[in-house]
Amino acid sequence: MKVAVFLGSDSDFDVIEGGLEILKEFGVPFSLEVTSAHRSPERTLKLIRESEGKGAEVFIAVAGKAAHLAGVIAGHTRLPVIGLPLGNGPLSGWDSLLSTVQMPPGVPVATVAIDGARNAAVLAGRILALKYPAIDEKLKEMARIERERYDQSADEALAKLGHKG
Amino acid sequence: MKVAVFLGSDSDFDVIEGGLEILKEFGVPFSLEVTSAHRSPERTLKLIRESEGKGAEVFIAVAGKAAHLAGVIAGHTRLPVIGLPLGNGPLSGWDSLLSTVQMPPGVPVATVAIDGARNAAVLAGRILALKYPAIDEKLKEMARIERERYDQSADEALAKLGHKG
Amino acid sequence: MKVAVFLGSDSDFDVIEGGLEILKEFGVPFSLEVTSAHRSPERTLKLIRESEGKGAEVFIAVAGKAAHLAGVIAGHTRLPVIGLPLGNGPLSGWDSLLSTVQMPPGVPVATVAIDGARNAAVLAGRILALKYPAIDEKLKEMARIERERYDQSADEALAKLGHKG
Amino acid sequence: MKVAVFLGSDSDFDVIEGGLEILKEFGVPFSLEVTSAHRSPERTLKLIRESEGKGAEVFIAVAGKAAHLAGVIAGHTRLPVIGLPLGNGPLSGWDSLLSTVQMPPGVPVATVAIDGARNAAVLAGRILALKYPAIDEKLKEMARIERERYDQSADEALAKLGHKG
Amino acid sequence: MKVAVFLGSDSDFDVIEGGLEILKEFGVPFSLEVTSAHRSPERTLKLIRESEGKGAEVFIAVAGKAAHLAGVIAGHTRLPVIGLPLGNGPLSGWDSLLSTVQMPPGVPVATVAIDGARNAAVLAGRILALKYPAIDEKLKEMARIERERYDQSADEALAKLGHKG
Amino acid sequence: MKVAVFLGSDSDFDVIEGGLEILKEFGVPFSLEVTSAHRSPERTLKLIRESEGKGAEVFIAVAGKAAHLAGVIAGHTRLPVIGLPLGNGPLSGWDSLLSTVQMPPGVPVATVAIDGARNAAVLAGRILALKYPAIDEKLKEMARIERERYDQSADEALAKLGHKG
Amino acid sequence: MKVAVFLGSDSDFDVIEGGLEILKEFGVPFSLEVTSAHRSPERTLKLIRESEGKGAEVFIAVAGKAAHLAGVIAGHTRLPVIGLPLGNGPLSGWDSLLSTVQMPPGVPVATVAIDGARNAAVLAGRILALKYPAIDEKLKEMARIERERYDQSADEALAKLGHKG
Amino acid sequence: MKVAVFLGSDSDFDVIEGGLEILKEFGVPFSLEVTSAHRSPERTLKLIRESEGKGAEVFIAVAGKAAHLAGVIAGHTRLPVIGLPLGNGPLSGWDSLLSTVQMPPGVPVATVAIDGARNAAVLAGRILALKYPAIDEKLKEMARIERERYDQSADEALAKLGHKG
Repeated sequence: MKVAVFLGSDSDFDVIEGGLEILKEFGVPFSLEVTSAHRSPERTLKLIRESEGKGAEVFIAVAGKAAHLAGVIAGHTRLPVIGLPLGNGPLSGWDSLLSTVQMPPGVPVATVAIDGARNAAVLAGRILALKYPAIDEKLKEMARIERERYDQSADEALAKLGHKG
Repeated sequence: MKVAVFLGSDSDFDVIEGGLEILKEFGVPFSLEVTSAHRSPERTLKLIRESEGKGAEVFIAVAGKAAHLAGVIAGHTRLPVIGLPLGNGPLSGWDSLLSTVQMPPGVPVATVAIDGARNAAVLAGRILALKYPAIDEKLKEMARIERERYDQSADEALAKLGHKG
Repeated sequence: MKVAVFLGSDSDFDVIEGGLEILKEFGVPFSLEVTSAHRSPERTLKLIRESEGKGAEVFIAVAGKAAHLAGVIAGHTRLPVIGLPLGNGPLSGWDSLLSTVQMPPGVPVATVAIDGARNAAVLAGRILALKYPAIDEKLKEMARIERERYDQSADEALAKLGHKG
Repeated sequence: MKVAVFLGSDSDFDVIEGGLEILKEFGVPFSLEVTSAHRSPERTLKLIRESEGKGAEVFIAVAGKAAHLAGVIAGHTRLPVIGLPLGNGPLSGWDSLLSTVQMPPGVPVATVAIDGARNAAVLAGRILALKYPAIDEKLKEMARIERERYDQSADEALAKLGHKG
Repeated sequence: MKVAVFLGSDSDFDVIEGGLEILKEFGVPFSLEVTSAHRSPERTLKLIRESEGKGAEVFIAVAGKAAHLAGVIAGHTRLPVIGLPLGNGPLSGWDSLLSTVQMPPGVPVATVAIDGARNAAVLAGRILALKYPAIDEKLKEMARIERERYDQSADEALAKLGHKG
Repeated sequence: MKVAVFLGSDSDFDVIEGGLEILKEFGVPFSLEVTSAHRSPERTLKLIRESEGKGAEVFIAVAGKAAHLAGVIAGHTRLPVIGLPLGNGPLSGWDSLLSTVQMPPGVPVATVAIDGARNAAVLAGRILALKYPAIDEKLKEMARIERERYDQSADEALAKLGHKG
Repeated sequence: MKVAVFLGSDSDFDVIEGGLEILKEFGVPFSLEVTSAHRSPERTLKLIRESEGKGAEVFIAVAGKAAHLAGVIAGHTRLPVIGLPLGNGPLSGWDSLLSTVQMPPGVPVATVAIDGARNAAVLAGRILALKYPAIDEKLKEMARIERERYDQSADEALAKLGHKG
Repeated sequence: MKVAVFLGSDSDFDVIEGGLEILKEFGVPFSLEVTSAHRSPERTLKLIRESEGKGAEVFIAVAGKAAHLAGVIAGHTRLPVIGLPLGNGPLSGWDSLLSTVQMPPGVPVATVAIDGARNAAVLAGRILALKYPAIDEKLKEMARIERERYDQSADEALAKLGHKG
């Protein structure tokens, strides 16, 4: 297991799903836990230790509103922690973004876009690729497919729309 | 000891000082600790337990930016936790306010105004006054003095300024 | 009666309902009044006095937009006042949050999350538990159930989803 | 007396001074009181009644942060209430603007710019001018002077700067 | 005609409708024009002059996004101008609120809540009531009905809900 | 070809469609490309060069969230670049507006309203009209139609609604 | 004269000065007027017509807070209008940015960064360069100098700092 | 060389200095370049390639306002890119934070706190420590010193202040 994904609530699963698909494409084994920095704090600490014990090299923490999950993990591990702020709740993610990114000196959280599950996964992939060349190959392949898909979808859209001025 | 005050950084002392004066006026014994949710997490957990052991009935947590200190305490105690967000840093307290107040269901933080140390102390006093009538007497006296001070300073200001249209 | 809940409008009832359930679980008797700081100010003052007369020990004020209800109560009582800002209206609660929390020195409102009715109720419970051990037992029980529910819902979600990397 | 000016704190006097000068230029008699919606609520209610008794036709309320003063007055009078939000405090007036302007249906506050004391006074003048033609003459004169001053200061600035491309 | 209502777009009619009902209840004759500060500027200037010619004593300007309509009117008349910012568009009224309220010294707009059509109308009523006692009677009656309605709707809601803890 | 329109994603086509209609009305030939500053950066640079080669005189860049497309183009061309920020995503365009407009000295992006495709097109028309009198004729005609349409739709709305106080 | 620069207040001159220097470097003749959309509206309309009469091809409007100057000009001309929002006032330019950029369909303002006078000037240059090749030469030269200046200042900074890891 | 630090402007050096000290403590060789995504785009692309050629494993991009530097690098490399948004400019970093963090799917930037240079460096250290055990030793040592420093500074502050309730 290389990536430990922590969700603050099981209702957040839909947001993260696209990111988990990418981890699978990378061939990166991961664990998925549902735990809260506030509502199950001891469980969270226990799961951090267990994840390190099982070989986790990167954490991804997914949380909304006063999103402390990533920060709590970052305070209890020396591994890189990726924070994925959620846009749920009345403030659309302004709260979770600031709660995740504005960490004090020495305890960084690598914050990605609000609801940006695919970015969290790709960032985990870029970090692991430094050590595991096979993941770098996957990233390279993904970028190539993305480029082609881009060209193609652009051409299709334009053809369908009949625009070329 | 009835109130446990936790500062996220010793540089925040100036902001809290006015609040500590009020706790003294109330005759409420308090402790003051400097600890961070992120930079000294084990120390924080230990101090929460110790504070409870010493008889703390209310916590006041003072922190800036991604201000998780109040939330972490609230997750580890059943006592009421007052969160005092600080206005330091580039975002002037928008980040600490949201990080402190937007807690998930079941784990409330009683949040007061940004840099509102006196409000944190008076709120602690109002809570304790439910149980300790002497503190309620102090609150009553404080309100009376405040009213008089208000009348007087208003009259002084107006006299000095010569305004009465 | 121990908790006096004031709603700024009867249309806000749905938001508060979950919080009232919790007060019932705590076995805390409460009253519920609909009154506005602006549209029925004398009624509000009268209800504050009546609530104190009936033994209220904590107020919960629920209001949206320029949410002054909690602040008005806090200016007329020495009891702790919990402010619950609502996320209705075009600004999604930014206005009610700031109107509730940014109180001047000496007149605190214990502000909880936007639309956070359950947090308002649990905060009332934590405050009352200082004086009434039976409520503290309820809080302890609630925390235990929450932890179990957390473990279980997490396990269920993971089983259903077949994720464990 | 035609205009009752209420300051939330005597420390706000500097901001309002320019507006009081304008009221004097209009020849509009006014009173100035220092009172707080929260810290001296009974005093505020008493002063509202007294101001009405002395013939006030417009209120101007000056307050910062969770600025409830204008709203409280508007709930206790049928006269027009002008709200002047202050830009003091860490949030630079975002809080006082929203607390002043976002009033519920039926209880309006005529809100002017943050720290806009001159606008509060001119708005009072425009309202009173409907009834008192002499004030309308003053407004007309003021507009004429303003236009001339504008032309002149523009010419001076340009002459001094040597700019005309 | 006493009140001139200017809409920036005919699509805004739904928002203002409740306010027009109130003007009718007051017995205040009003005109309604659709014109834009930007898209039909000459028409706007012409309508300002015509409205003054027909006896308008108060303007109400209704506009969204970069809402300049109220400000443009305020620059071309000495009458009081009420600005009603709309919450349409992606920014939910933050843009129209700031564009309407933050006017420069000497050219005030009496700004009311976002989408607050009833407040715009009541504010017009309060201003006109200074001169027309019949409108003041209507305001008094409206306040009485509002209070009764409040008491009643509160009682109904509580009865229906069976809450009285 | 005079205007090169770059979309950051083909899913943004709906937003831009109204703007393309206007370019057609102007008789301005344009190209439409789908390319991303981040996901297909080399393609973007190649398309900038190609567009210049084909005679583009104005760029319009359409992008959401961290909207860098306009800025990247502005760094690689000396032609005027119009930035159209999109309101998609959880932050409703606050992110794309700031990412587009807050460019460093010397590399301007002519930013228009969030989702303001028609404004982007009209701005392109105004710029090109300096050089091509036929486009200026079209702008004049469009303004005339707009004015008439305004008068008419206003009259229709008012007739239908029966309002004229 | 090719560029007409309108300042909302002569106190804004310092902000625009760097931009005027660039117009001079471009050899672009410009006029500078001080006029306000609100405080001298007739003067503003007269100056728009006069500027067009003198051959202006681009407007630059500089204003703070509820910054309507650019929008008013855009409603009265078919020429391109560049809006330069100022960061003065308590809200640091949030108000002027939104008031300038969020224009309704058909009346665009080409908005540049808050206090971005150099960007306003360069954007004017890019627009005029479509018609006047000499200005394009200046832009090319400026870009070359900028690149060199960049390389050099970077090298100097690094040399001085002794950093190259 | 393992870390490539890119500054958007040499005036940003003061902010980054504390972070460079930490990289030195880690014994991590780094390069420092001054280059802008907008003002020297070709130079930026060239430096990305050169940095990769020299063995860079992590990028740190430092930029303010419409901060595109991190995003541009992330689009041109598969290495992890850390974005450090700056709080300079009138909007205090709201613009640079959103421009840096809100990246589209597949092109993540690991964003840290506004002006959080030490966090950028520690995050680089945590990433590299996965591969280089010596850096992990440094992180462990740093955490130990931090904890001790925390205890000590807390004790000193408390001793000096004489607080222990």
